[in-house]
Amino acid sequence: MDIEAIMGEVLRRIKPTEEERAFINGLMRELEDLVRETSEDLGLDVRPYFVGSLAKDTYLAGDHDVDLFLAFPLRTPLKKLREKGLELGRAIAEELDSYEIAYAEHPYVRASYKGVKVDLVPCYDVKDWRDVRTAVDRSILHTEWVLENLKGRNDEVRLLKRFLKGIGAYGSEIYVRGFSGYLAEILVIKYGSFLEVLRNADFMLRQKIIDPGNWLKHEYETAMKTIKREAEEDRPLVVIDPVDPRRNVAANLSWEKYGRFYFKAQEFLQNPSAGFFFPTEFIGGDYLAELRRKGTHLVTLLFAVPEMVDDLLFPQLERSAKGFEKALAREGFAVLGWNIGRCKSGKAFIMLEVDRIERPMVRIHPGPEFFTNRGWDFYQKNERVWLVGKRLYAEKAVKESITDVILELLEKNQVAMGKNLRKPIKGTDVLVDYVPRDLETEAYLFLSRKKEGLKN
Amino acid sequence: MDIEAIMGEVLRRIKPTEEERAFINGLMRELEDLVRETSEDLGLDVRPYFVGSLAKDTYLAGDHDVDLFLAFPLRTPLKKLREKGLELGRAIAEELDSYEIAYAEHPYVRASYKGVKVDLVPCYDVKDWRDVRTAVDRSILHTEWVLENLKGRNDEVRLLKRFLKGIGAYGSEIYVRGFSGYLAEILVIKYGSFLEVLRNADFMLRQKIIDPGNWLKHEYETAMKTIKREAEEDRPLVVIDPVDPRRNVAANLSWEKYGRFYFKAQEFLQNPSAGFFFPTEFIGGDYLAELRRKGTHLVTLLFAVPEMVDDLLFPQLERSAKGFEKALAREGFAVLGWNIGRCKSGKAFIMLEVDRIERPMVRIHPGPEFFTNRGWDFYQKNERVWLVGKRLYAEKAVKESITDVILELLEKNQVAMGKNLRKPIKGTDVLVDYVPRDLETEAYLFLSRKKEGLKN
Repeated sequence: MDIEAIMGEVLRRIKPTEEERAFINGLMRELEDLVRETSEDLGLDVRPYFVGSLAKDTYLAGDHDVDLFLAFPLRTPLKKLREKGLELGRAIAEELDSYEIAYAEHPYVRASYKGVKVDLVPCYDVKDWRDVRTAVDRSILHTEWVLENLKGRNDEVRLLKRFLKGIGAYGSEIYVRGFSGYLAEILVIKYGSFLEVLRNADFMLRQKIIDPGNWLKHEYETAMKTIKREAEEDRPLVVIDPVDPRRNVAANLSWEKYGRFYFKAQEFLQNPSAGFFFPTEFIGGDYLAELRRKGTHLVTLLFAVPEMVDDLLFPQLERSAKGFEKALAREGFAVLGWNIGRCKSGKAFIMLEVDRIERPMVRIHPGPEFFTNRGWDFYQKNERVWLVGKRLYAEKAVKESITDVILELLEKNQVAMGKNLRKPIKGTDVLVDYVPRDLETEAYLFLSRKKEGLKN
Repeated sequence: MDIEAIMGEVLRRIKPTEEERAFINGLMRELEDLVRETSEDLGLDVRPYFVGSLAKDTYLAGDHDVDLFLAFPLRTPLKKLREKGLELGRAIAEELDSYEIAYAEHPYVRASYKGVKVDLVPCYDVKDWRDVRTAVDRSILHTEWVLENLKGRNDEVRLLKRFLKGIGAYGSEIYVRGFSGYLAEILVIKYGSFLEVLRNADFMLRQKIIDPGNWLKHEYETAMKTIKREAEEDRPLVVIDPVDPRRNVAANLSWEKYGRFYFKAQEFLQNPSAGFFFPTEFIGGDYLAELRRKGTHLVTLLFAVPEMVDDLLFPQLERSAKGFEKALAREGFAVLGWNIGRCKSGKAFIMLEVDRIERPMVRIHPGPEFFTNRGWDFYQKNERVWLVGKRLYAEKAVKESITDVILELLEKNQVAMGKNLRKPIKGTDVLVDYVPRDLETEAYLFLSRKKEGLKN
């Protein structure tokens, strides 16, 4: 099948139908009216804005969460915006099916209506980047900019988003660090089409700077400051936000996710298939066979964690996994890879693939130079002691199983960890070459490198 | 027993008896006459000099090899000295019991007479360091200097030499790198007695420079050049040769051997015993039990070597052992220690104590940055490939047993080795956790660290 036919087939699956579109538009009109009425009732001067992929008509079929922003005048004090924003959100949500309060920089209302998730988010009614006061205020400007510039290429965005999802590079959450929807939109606007974005995967990396808002012309100093800062952080791309020259739209994009895009783009262009957009779900795989094949071992730490959202938990699990990698390396165990996540039980896990689970009972312990006070101490303290050049060495008895070593490291606080995990991890189970049933597939995907691997 | 009593007891064992002394003196007179007669017969203008510990009367009981130097006039051309020196040596040796030709810088005659080894070494009859032309010429000057300066402290030298032997720090051979007899004599002359030398073990290391010939006064520039050169080489001591300001008498003394002396001197002074001079010979020990206790493994390379003296072979074995240490570390095997030597069969061996003898069948192989030509190659060549930051990684299948790894390293010439050993080691046997019977004690001494250890 040629590339155009494939894209046609994919589009048929991801483009919302007229029915879905009509349903969504009806819903949006209904919600908009509800906001106007409710703010009037409460005597609030609030304008409703739809933002996100729904407002921009770049959403994928079936993926139609509503982001409804409640914009207060700029003169509103922040405290009042938080109070009244939440009050208004609640009042609106009372008219919907159900709701809860969620927390980001400010509290907001997460409601459900006719099976659709509706976020009611208070913000300032900004017209310009200089007005931006809270993290969400820019969304209105983003929506406006995309609507103005997209010029009918909405389906190209849909293809790119689905492609990025398919290859596992979509989402700007801190534990994903992939492409955001807004970044996908900017790239389509910049390069003209889905295929052109793919064709430019190498070029844009080399060019490094994308400036669709022409800030380098109009706000040279601010834009240069952004470029310098982001270049120092060694980001793969610096995409100066067309609505705010202080911001890199791709600030959260990791090299790993860009690399995925880079290889998959080339492969798709050379050998196109719908599989890039809709990878076949993986079924089964024997992690124990994988361990035997590789000759490595799997150590799994399994522990209860306090209630935390993934945005908070996952970075801390990552930090802890890296902490174990370092600490175990110092102890003579090489960590070939690690993997983190949550079990269905709610417990968190850290998996470590290690080269061995036992080590010699003695270790060479380097000491000081011999002709020092510490040298004399070292000589007297150690039984088996010798010289290499002017340095003393001794044999030291050490724990031998990796489980013992891990427990001792934890006891002595010698592992760098996420701050909320220090205590939970102290009570961890340590499983060697064995995982509970609900982690078997996870263990297989990890050990076989199917999880982080570029080829599946 | 107090320290004086101990030294008295030791002296009784190491001081030559009047009988031995009379026998040796008779032998020397006899040999001297023989040199004179033989050179006259051959029409050579040669003077006999006795050098070494016999000439200086600092030899230990039973340890009375004769060093007889045949000194030619300075005007003799080098070529003639070599020819005539060997001719004269042979002619003298014909009158003795047996002899062979040995090779150092020049060939010389190694004879045997009345059960005593007699070296007949041609040299120049130098009166001053500026005349020195061959490596052995200085010996005559050394003997003269010691005879002039020792002033009856011969037994103090005997004690020091026996002490150094007892603690394993005596001998300036390249594969020993300990104290030479001449250095022991200088130290006694400098500090006055055996005990004073021991008491100054720390001080002389800190003072660093010993200049018994007062060269810093009379030959400042030459002496400073020596000091600078030797300081750059980071020698433990710089003892400017009292007969030649260009030379550090302690140039071959290693930090390891000085360290041995350093600790043992302190221990002897604190807790004297005759055991320092005459350590009890080690009997037996189970190297397999030692391996079990330590949880480590012993890999022994055993191979035939071309005919080489130890002076040549041992440094090359050392170099090769270090080469294996490095190459195996790159391959994921930690070498905790190595040991080299000759078997009774004449074969050479390299023993390596390693932390394990198997490793995982896969290894993490770091690749290039992904956005390069090499990155694209790496991506295509490897099946299991992923990114960490911008760098590609892949899993690589590797050999798993240390024997396979060693044989592959040898085949690919990836081990740094002594130049004459490259070929012999290619045909090596690789023994894992097993040694032939005649190496069992050697293996035990090595693994238990009794060989290089400071405490036995």
